[in-house]
Amino acid sequence: MKTPDILLTPGPTPLPPQVREALARPIIHHRTAHYRAIFKRTLQGMQTVMQTAQPVCCLTSSGTGAMEAAVVNLLAPGDEAIVVLGGKFGERWQELCQAYAIRAVTVPVTYGDAADPAQVGAALKAHPSAKAVFATLCETSTGVVHDIRAIAQLTRKSQAVLVVDAISGLLADECHTDAWGIDVLVSGSQKGLMLPPGLAFISVNERAWALMERATTSRYYYDLRVARKALADDDTPFTPAVAIVVALDEALKLILGTGVAQRLEHNGQIARGTRAAVEAMGLSLFAKRPSNGVTAVKVPQGVDGKKLAALMYERSGVMVAGGQGEMAGKIIRFAHMGYITAEDLCAGLTALEEALRALNHPVPAGEGVRAAQAIFGARLSAGPAPKGGARVPS
Amino acid sequence: MKTPDILLTPGPTPLPPQVREALARPIIHHRTAHYRAIFKRTLQGMQTVMQTAQPVCCLTSSGTGAMEAAVVNLLAPGDEAIVVLGGKFGERWQELCQAYAIRAVTVPVTYGDAADPAQVGAALKAHPSAKAVFATLCETSTGVVHDIRAIAQLTRKSQAVLVVDAISGLLADECHTDAWGIDVLVSGSQKGLMLPPGLAFISVNERAWALMERATTSRYYYDLRVARKALADDDTPFTPAVAIVVALDEALKLILGTGVAQRLEHNGQIARGTRAAVEAMGLSLFAKRPSNGVTAVKVPQGVDGKKLAALMYERSGVMVAGGQGEMAGKIIRFAHMGYITAEDLCAGLTALEEALRALNHPVPAGEGVRAAQAIFGARLSAGPAPKGGARVPS
Repeated sequence: MKTPDILLTPGPTPLPPQVREALARPIIHHRTAHYRAIFKRTLQGMQTVMQTAQPVCCLTSSGTGAMEAAVVNLLAPGDEAIVVLGGKFGERWQELCQAYAIRAVTVPVTYGDAADPAQVGAALKAHPSAKAVFATLCETSTGVVHDIRAIAQLTRKSQAVLVVDAISGLLADECHTDAWGIDVLVSGSQKGLMLPPGLAFISVNERAWALMERATTSRYYYDLRVARKALADDDTPFTPAVAIVVALDEALKLILGTGVAQRLEHNGQIARGTRAAVEAMGLSLFAKRPSNGVTAVKVPQGVDGKKLAALMYERSGVMVAGGQGEMAGKIIRFAHMGYITAEDLCAGLTALEEALRALNHPVPAGEGVRAAQAIFGARLSAGPAPKGGARVPS
Repeated sequence: MKTPDILLTPGPTPLPPQVREALARPIIHHRTAHYRAIFKRTLQGMQTVMQTAQPVCCLTSSGTGAMEAAVVNLLAPGDEAIVVLGGKFGERWQELCQAYAIRAVTVPVTYGDAADPAQVGAALKAHPSAKAVFATLCETSTGVVHDIRAIAQLTRKSQAVLVVDAISGLLADECHTDAWGIDVLVSGSQKGLMLPPGLAFISVNERAWALMERATTSRYYYDLRVARKALADDDTPFTPAVAIVVALDEALKLILGTGVAQRLEHNGQIARGTRAAVEAMGLSLFAKRPSNGVTAVKVPQGVDGKKLAALMYERSGVMVAGGQGEMAGKIIRFAHMGYITAEDLCAGLTALEEALRALNHPVPAGEGVRAAQAIFGARLSAGPAPKGGARVPS
């Protein structure tokens, strides 16, 4: 077994050398001026990345922990909430509501489709007592980006707060938290932020804080009232994942050095190039409203999707994600997040072409990469962190 | 502001070079045979370290997350539980019970004292319906190690399960989970395991699993029923802190290479040496039953404890912990966990002597280190991981 040379999975995503160097530093203590200064700076950087002037809380957990924090801090057992489905992560909101006895009114979405904002509006009208709408920016399992802007506009007309899972969408798809009126935004470290998994982030506006002060669901580790108080001292209620926070400081230098807008532009470009390549290879995209964070490709009929992904890894050292749950074997997914470059995707597309050929599904030689290149153009390597440079053990 | 040269805080504790190198490696995906093999091996190693044949679940969170997992998986609102106090971490069990509407019967313990097991026995007799006893191995805030063996013997006579917080005690103080009859043991990564914070561990025996299947407290991220099922595939329900798990694999090579018994012996020796040094300097120990994980030293009258710790850092680059909460300024604490060596403690004791002198509290020159050396003896550097060796960025 080898470490994949080119990791194209939608989290964890590859780490820049600067991040790997930071992870390898001697550990520092978190209740020191040195650490507090780093923590303060990173949370300010996260406000820029999350496009909000609201405070951002940092949790030591997977992204799911921040999703749970949103549910348990906003609602009480018996409360009603609208949940937008459409994939594994939309369903996670539903599961969280079920676990905490929240009455979830679901907006069903066929896998591969984006939610129809009008359906969310209709659900809000039919359930005027709903306190929250739970939605997903990029539905990683299908490669769809939902129209959060439109959903926010409709939610704004109700009393409900809008909570958006941007775990994989942050820094990949447009997400104007304050400008669009997203009340709570959730994200995680192992996607666009180019870090290992272990940190989660949640921004909360005044409208949502008001609910949090009144919510009665039991909570302790994820009690955001306590986390918010600790922010005043640039502190967290419990020992934070110090090493990942220190690495976040380096990642933010790279991201903010180029800027969020350019980061999004780069991501859009490599995603468009990948989509063009897939179609030039005679394959089909799975998502009807594709995210720039991940491209889901339908496995052609007669090809075993699990074998296809395995072969790409064995032959070319390229690791892509397959489908999850009932999508297993039916799609493969190329991530575009974070430190993934156009070059990585050229390698991934070539690996796909070769693996398809080996599985007796020939595709025109080189057409995929040619179509991608036409879009990647002179902007190859335009990512926020050019590869090479810092020397770290590998 | 500089990175402390010698970190003697009770978590995070210093990282061995082998761990730092592992943290700096390219990230790997967690749903691969490569990762699953590492994860399986580390959980087997954790069984050895936690001295249990029971399954160990790994959570991406601070140690407090695993404490919360114990509470929400074992109990239902309105249930009764015995909570052994005596410091900040005993009180954390009480706070968790309060947050989840568990009726906590507290066993009060004066700070610096160890719990009287007979009092726990009396509480169990007075409250025969109590479903759990929550206790602490090493109470990090006071430097006390509680007599868990005796508490376990008494708990065994009741229907209650014994849940022990060994976050800072693991690998420092004796803890025979199965042999003593501890039903649930909780720990964290950033102490004796020589890792950054971000992972927590919880071992659960059959007696406790039976309660977990019946408990009705709402839970999702910390639902151990789901975590246990995932263990069958060497998996976790949510994306784990991959980089720290990979580093755990390296840390366990060091720990299991020398063996848990020798690790405990080393820790006992450097703790005894430190205690002898403190008394030779004319100072007093705070803990009546001192842990081998951390030594709490009373700040002599007339000396400002906060200034003392600050001066040790400024003059000598040695970082110790002060007191927490109402202990602030009254004690300083030297950790002995993990990668901390006798040499580190000699430097720390010298820093203490010099800082006391600078604060007009003269202590006999060199007597502390001389007393420590008599106990450290030929075993200096007998830790599980000799310093130096691997080359990593610093």
